[in-house]
Amino acid sequence: MSTLCVLAAPSLLASKPLTDRLRAETPKEFDIVLGSEIEDFKDVIDGAKSRDEVSMLWWFAKKELVEGFMASASVGERVRWMHSGSAGVEHLLAVDAVKNHSAPLSNGKGAFSASLGEWGVFACMYFAKRVDVMRKAQSERRWIREHVGMIEGKRMCVVGYGDIGAHVASRAKAMGMHVDAVRRSPEKTSANDSSVERVVSFAEINDAVKDADYVVVALPATPETEKMINADVLRSMKPSSVLINVGRGSTVDEDALVDALRDKTIAGAALDVFAVEPLPSNHAFYGMENVLISFHCADLTADYHDLALDCFIENATNVVKGQPLTHVVDKALGY
Amino acid sequence: MSTLCVLAAPSLLASKPLTDRLRAETPKEFDIVLGSEIEDFKDVIDGAKSRDEVSMLWWFAKKELVEGFMASASVGERVRWMHSGSAGVEHLLAVDAVKNHSAPLSNGKGAFSASLGEWGVFACMYFAKRVDVMRKAQSERRWIREHVGMIEGKRMCVVGYGDIGAHVASRAKAMGMHVDAVRRSPEKTSANDSSVERVVSFAEINDAVKDADYVVVALPATPETEKMINADVLRSMKPSSVLINVGRGSTVDEDALVDALRDKTIAGAALDVFAVEPLPSNHAFYGMENVLISFHCADLTADYHDLALDCFIENATNVVKGQPLTHVVDKALGY
Repeated sequence: MSTLCVLAAPSLLASKPLTDRLRAETPKEFDIVLGSEIEDFKDVIDGAKSRDEVSMLWWFAKKELVEGFMASASVGERVRWMHSGSAGVEHLLAVDAVKNHSAPLSNGKGAFSASLGEWGVFACMYFAKRVDVMRKAQSERRWIREHVGMIEGKRMCVVGYGDIGAHVASRAKAMGMHVDAVRRSPEKTSANDSSVERVVSFAEINDAVKDADYVVVALPATPETEKMINADVLRSMKPSSVLINVGRGSTVDEDALVDALRDKTIAGAALDVFAVEPLPSNHAFYGMENVLISFHCADLTADYHDLALDCFIENATNVVKGQPLTHVVDKALGY
Repeated sequence: MSTLCVLAAPSLLASKPLTDRLRAETPKEFDIVLGSEIEDFKDVIDGAKSRDEVSMLWWFAKKELVEGFMASASVGERVRWMHSGSAGVEHLLAVDAVKNHSAPLSNGKGAFSASLGEWGVFACMYFAKRVDVMRKAQSERRWIREHVGMIEGKRMCVVGYGDIGAHVASRAKAMGMHVDAVRRSPEKTSANDSSVERVVSFAEINDAVKDADYVVVALPATPETEKMINADVLRSMKPSSVLINVGRGSTVDEDALVDALRDKTIAGAALDVFAVEPLPSNHAFYGMENVLISFHCADLTADYHDLALDCFIENATNVVKGQPLTHVVDKALGY
């Protein structure tokens, strides 16, 4: 028997449908211990529930709980598998005891790609269709005649062409856009991938964005991607272009972006993620008319946590059956 | 030689790029007379420019000019071909001398279908992604956690499945939606049309809309379609559903729609067209938070008039070559 320790956010712990589902669908070989405070795992840590193996599900708990849990020598050495409910694992890898552990870490990769794929295309249209001009005129009860743009025939550059990036690209292509991609390993792009016309490496990002009408960032947060969208990249973009970030806030130099938006060297930005979340209320982004803020909600569909559980349960079943885990994180690369 | 009388809106007459293009690309067999007032056509009417044949291009001129022009006995009997720059021809057919004339009337069908197809899908996402909630929170510098919806997997019902409706449907299908259609002649639907799952006649509209998350109206303005979207249809729709009108305002019973939106028997409406345009500034639609008004601009792309000219020039060439006209209006049906 294996003990599954679910390090949960209080809001998830309080959700009976979700905890019921977790208990019902996790294979019976796991003995489940759910908690949001270190005390909830006292029996596991103190040995009253000493087992051969411990598995850990990070269910959106605070970092301190992960640190406290993993710091316990009695637990740390027994951990055999760790899983992140989210696709991004930078919070978990910020805990050394997780990052340096020999046990595999899998994640919720793919669970949120469809919603972010839709959002990416939506964000293009939000700017093309000039929603702000329309809303302002409506609020002033003023009839207007204003041009709207098309996304059909326009060019998108997806920076970070993983599962999320590919979901944005396929939808953009379906709407008649031309799509290029920038990714860490261009050679990983399938020969059958008809969504993208050109795939280049990170080193070529400045060239890749220069013809794009929309630059969609879907990068994970890693040391390598930190502030990858910097002043140089923004300067390479067209004045009419729009930046869309559905990945992680740390990948954008936000000061440089504020300058670019203020000076109109790019036309706008749709930002779902930020270097600091919640975005502080005095941040310049809030007051900029050419910025659409979506509060890290672009993938927060009603079934968000069920999609995350799908990934976890799939892998828990793999563990029990002795099959390979899906979506194993490369801890060195950070995604 | 044939005289082509271009009955133009003053703004088009003032556009040198457009008038230059009209003169350059219209076949030389036409002797072009451009005007926005009846006096501009004096030579044609008085016979100083008497010709065997007259062709008429309605280039968004006011109705009075069309009436005055067609009322001239010397012109009326010589008209051999009429073309409408727009796809909708209800303004032209409101002139008896046009409606009852034996000369064929062709129109700009197809020119604006791509832009309206994009808008139809955009409008679904505008509501699914809860833009209003996001914009309000941003303006108040308030971080929120709010669910967003998906259009993938949702159901659209396209009412009026002509060229515009088909362009909405194909894009909706590409984004993963299920699409049904209601049209005057369901049997006209091609067996190869993979965009729609079910196509029914106008008589079945109440049943067709009842499972739809989005009802997209793309009907022409005809006596048959007047107020087709009435209180019964709106009552048949789900409380969570959204009405999107990209066709003509006369096809919706606006009083019934105001009631439905006020009573929340439907969730929202994206309205590009209205029974009276410009929409009077005291109209209830302006003040409704669940209404997105787009001011008949959803197809007003920068190349709108060039797309319209493409259609005209194609048919002018057909006339000269003795080939059949494309997009001939059925004057009895009104589209």
